[in-house]
Amino acid sequence: MAEPDSTLFVVNNIWMLVATLLVFIMHLGFAALTRSKNTVNILFKNVSIISIGLLTYAVIGFSLMYPGEAYKGGVFGFAGFWIGTDAAGLTAAYNPGYTYWTDFLFQGMFAATAATIISGAVAERVKLGSFLLFATLYVALIYPIVGMWHWGGGFLNAWGFYDFAGSTIVHGVGGWGALAGVLVIGPRLGKYGKRNKPLLGHNLPLATIGAFLLWFGWYGFNGGSVLSADPGKVSLVFVTTSLGAAAGVAGAGLLTNFMQHKPDLTMVLNGALAGLVGITASADIVTPAEAVLIGLIAGAVVVPAVLGLERLRLDDPVGAISVHLVSGVWGTLAAGLFGDGTSFWKQLGGVALVGGFCFSTSFALFWVIKKTIGIRVSPDEEREGLDYAEHGMRAYGDL
Amino acid sequence: MAEPDSTLFVVNNIWMLVATLLVFIMHLGFAALTRSKNTVNILFKNVSIISIGLLTYAVIGFSLMYPGEAYKGGVFGFAGFWIGTDAAGLTAAYNPGYTYWTDFLFQGMFAATAATIISGAVAERVKLGSFLLFATLYVALIYPIVGMWHWGGGFLNAWGFYDFAGSTIVHGVGGWGALAGVLVIGPRLGKYGKRNKPLLGHNLPLATIGAFLLWFGWYGFNGGSVLSADPGKVSLVFVTTSLGAAAGVAGAGLLTNFMQHKPDLTMVLNGALAGLVGITASADIVTPAEAVLIGLIAGAVVVPAVLGLERLRLDDPVGAISVHLVSGVWGTLAAGLFGDGTSFWKQLGGVALVGGFCFSTSFALFWVIKKTIGIRVSPDEEREGLDYAEHGMRAYGDL
Amino acid sequence: MAEPDSTLFVVNNIWMLVATLLVFIMHLGFAALTRSKNTVNILFKNVSIISIGLLTYAVIGFSLMYPGEAYKGGVFGFAGFWIGTDAAGLTAAYNPGYTYWTDFLFQGMFAATAATIISGAVAERVKLGSFLLFATLYVALIYPIVGMWHWGGGFLNAWGFYDFAGSTIVHGVGGWGALAGVLVIGPRLGKYGKRNKPLLGHNLPLATIGAFLLWFGWYGFNGGSVLSADPGKVSLVFVTTSLGAAAGVAGAGLLTNFMQHKPDLTMVLNGALAGLVGITASADIVTPAEAVLIGLIAGAVVVPAVLGLERLRLDDPVGAISVHLVSGVWGTLAAGLFGDGTSFWKQLGGVALVGGFCFSTSFALFWVIKKTIGIRVSPDEEREGLDYAEHGMRAYGDL
Repeated sequence: MAEPDSTLFVVNNIWMLVATLLVFIMHLGFAALTRSKNTVNILFKNVSIISIGLLTYAVIGFSLMYPGEAYKGGVFGFAGFWIGTDAAGLTAAYNPGYTYWTDFLFQGMFAATAATIISGAVAERVKLGSFLLFATLYVALIYPIVGMWHWGGGFLNAWGFYDFAGSTIVHGVGGWGALAGVLVIGPRLGKYGKRNKPLLGHNLPLATIGAFLLWFGWYGFNGGSVLSADPGKVSLVFVTTSLGAAAGVAGAGLLTNFMQHKPDLTMVLNGALAGLVGITASADIVTPAEAVLIGLIAGAVVVPAVLGLERLRLDDPVGAISVHLVSGVWGTLAAGLFGDGTSFWKQLGGVALVGGFCFSTSFALFWVIKKTIGIRVSPDEEREGLDYAEHGMRAYGDL
Repeated sequence: MAEPDSTLFVVNNIWMLVATLLVFIMHLGFAALTRSKNTVNILFKNVSIISIGLLTYAVIGFSLMYPGEAYKGGVFGFAGFWIGTDAAGLTAAYNPGYTYWTDFLFQGMFAATAATIISGAVAERVKLGSFLLFATLYVALIYPIVGMWHWGGGFLNAWGFYDFAGSTIVHGVGGWGALAGVLVIGPRLGKYGKRNKPLLGHNLPLATIGAFLLWFGWYGFNGGSVLSADPGKVSLVFVTTSLGAAAGVAGAGLLTNFMQHKPDLTMVLNGALAGLVGITASADIVTPAEAVLIGLIAGAVVVPAVLGLERLRLDDPVGAISVHLVSGVWGTLAAGLFGDGTSFWKQLGGVALVGGFCFSTSFALFWVIKKTIGIRVSPDEEREGLDYAEHGMRAYGDL
Repeated sequence: MAEPDSTLFVVNNIWMLVATLLVFIMHLGFAALTRSKNTVNILFKNVSIISIGLLTYAVIGFSLMYPGEAYKGGVFGFAGFWIGTDAAGLTAAYNPGYTYWTDFLFQGMFAATAATIISGAVAERVKLGSFLLFATLYVALIYPIVGMWHWGGGFLNAWGFYDFAGSTIVHGVGGWGALAGVLVIGPRLGKYGKRNKPLLGHNLPLATIGAFLLWFGWYGFNGGSVLSADPGKVSLVFVTTSLGAAAGVAGAGLLTNFMQHKPDLTMVLNGALAGLVGITASADIVTPAEAVLIGLIAGAVVVPAVLGLERLRLDDPVGAISVHLVSGVWGTLAAGLFGDGTSFWKQLGGVALVGGFCFSTSFALFWVIKKTIGIRVSPDEEREGLDYAEHGMRAYGDL
């Protein structure tokens, strides 16, 4: 470990800060695949979630996720409200590698991610206030509690579960919440009649910019999860992350072309993201060749996943469940298959425990909200679009 | 200070260069909130201003802002035309922490910012050539002269005025110029009849991308203003900057929701930027909790500021005065309220001196341009849109 | 050279990785200037090319470009399929400055660039599968073979040819391929009747975002080509790159304004890119003043280049030949004019050798594809747009 007064400490810290701002820009990437009439709404949610995520992480999340000595059997701990205020104390006892502030902010940027994933799945019909209430509770409480189980030194970590940068701990947490949300809120109006009707995103250049920015930011998400600037580890993680994404494009592209004879842009973008989610659990412990295999499968699996959810009439406008949950499960299991010293069964166990907790708490949360203040806009508002109904604005003027 | 042949010097320098390119990308963020028919025009101005800013800073600005020995009582100095050409001289005498070229470029990226702020305020009716003339003179002369007062070792610095990264020295300088421009050029046609008519931006996804990229780049703007990779300082600045922005979103979101019952996307984006402008003066000397308070107030104040300017019939299409001037003043005063060893009254004095100088010079400059070559396109051209009138192009083909 | 266990090695390596992700984001910048009906198609090609580029570079490209001992007279060598898998071997013998993985990925991000340039030139009429076949062969074989001649220690390097970051080795390689492609495939339908008809891009905000992101990424492209974090060299390269781009804007803006009396946004964006391409060959060996001159000429030359190609009825929808080939040639020659110890005639020789090889191989490749599986969509498909014909999708829903 680098001493706080060494140059190596300065390097590690500055790399972690660069990684932090890369994770920040991912929140722009999550801007969306909705129809035009719901665009202001999803942009508003994205901006709100990053704000809610950072503020609640300062108030309570960081203390829940990294409770230090305040453990209760590795399942729950709480170090008190608000982040520390002693700027002179450069490092926390449990983290001598970079400053306390860096630690807080890098982790804080992760926190909001889970809620953003859910935002996409319930888009185009969820009530704004109800969703923001859910998101606040989810990022303030559920995400950091689960995070502690693994990254805060809790029982999953002690048990031998492995998840390098969060295929399960971030993307799974978001994905299970997305599944619960979709089940509670139901499909968009007009989506499933006699036939499934595609309700496509309105702006594919925007969606492509979003996917590229997510890929770009993922170098911070995975590269920063090394928690130092260690040359061998960070550069290996960059390579496996890159090849996982590239293979995800190939997997989705080849399969969609084979199945539909029309290469589908949204599918290859989903393939890239699925490859990235898939490689996230094991980016530091697999070889480049294994990264290609993991990404290829992740990209290929996203195609039947999207089609399967459609057949099950689970309406997920942006494909969040397929990309984050399905590929997150695959990536977590792949870490058991390919990593040295990892166990497939422990990986499966971790997936089940996190999934059980996240699905049940988010389902309960959505259900209570539905039964009290309501979860869904009125049919008239939904038809008219959330931009006008909720915000009184339109995304586009006269082009 | 790091020795030029030490590894710490290498780290400091590379961080400053990364910060530099983050400030560069902010210029994309300033692309705008105009109506569709004036989009090519504002994009053209943005590209031109970064070019003008860098070139004039090389020719004269850098030598005006950091004149070294050539002071005249701390108010004016000039070290001669063109940046130095001795690449072997890695560092300047006054700046041993990183290279001379790094110093020039980081400061040069700041220079164009002030003019871009003004560009937004006079958008949709200013004559292109007249504006570019104004912008050239403003960034080549006014910005670096004021900058020297504080950052170039001039009298404001000696006096005890504090402005970490430029709530006043950058955003105030731009904001006062914006106010002068709006007063001289007058409102857009059709804006103020019997009632104020909103003339809304045409593309809110673009505006949101812009705001996120500004936030992203602000980590370089503030983080680079530490002028080294010092772990404690840079990470504190990242945290206060993040929380200031997040609180700005919350402040604007809560107030606009309370006042209008319709959460307003443009207002929360303005709130984020207001929070960022507000924290900029004191990001290195306040605690995270104080940063939240500063950002919250900045975000809340931007709402009545926008509405107040509308009532005063000061037509500022992008909200530049509210975001950059009003929040810049607040942030500068807040540095006096919350910082150790700063003085509220000295902060107020600095705001007044910079404001008096910038407002009067920019008003005079706009006025002379108006009386000579003209400042405004013809009513016909304005109605038709500047894209066709000035550039003979449209921003969008058949979508 | 930094020792692999030194802090300086850590710094060099982390800067190279940051540069790598900056080059990555350039691939978003290449998203395009096509008409709306061909937008999905060009986005699909961009995503595919980065995937193909990374995967083929891992399979074969890296081993062709840096064959180590396996030279054959400095013209061709091959170190075997697939990148090394020994993660423990941090550095390659020929590259002690940073890790083997970093080396692979930084170079791999360059590889796809050449194919993307060609993609723009043949846009709006090329068959997707045929283009992807061409692109795969070009980035897997032609680019790395030519790259070896100079950067892999081949005969051009031994001879004294100088090309710092690839005015010829990257942009020329792409530009010559673009010219060959345009000649083989012919102009778009309806482009050249009695008069040249402009078939303009449909979304100039998108084009501007693209150009800014290219400029942004170029700091990694050129700054990373220093191959270390050396403070003096990297900061000089940042300054010359910035001033080259800024002067390119000025050159194109002034000339187009003088010629057409209408300042043309696409021309100043092309001017910025031409300035960047121009300075790329000599960014580390010229003074800032020389960088301004090189960029100014590059920006000015792009205007007659675009108009001249139009007159020759060479239909290049995005101006790829003018920006990358013409300016690449100029930049390579400029390195001979302004650099110390370089030779104008050797530069000209290198341009000719690379041009001859790339133009002939890409012409042959395009020609064989044309005669076998076909290179061009049917006239009906072209009129309808490639988005519907090739992908069955539209880029924009109801805005």
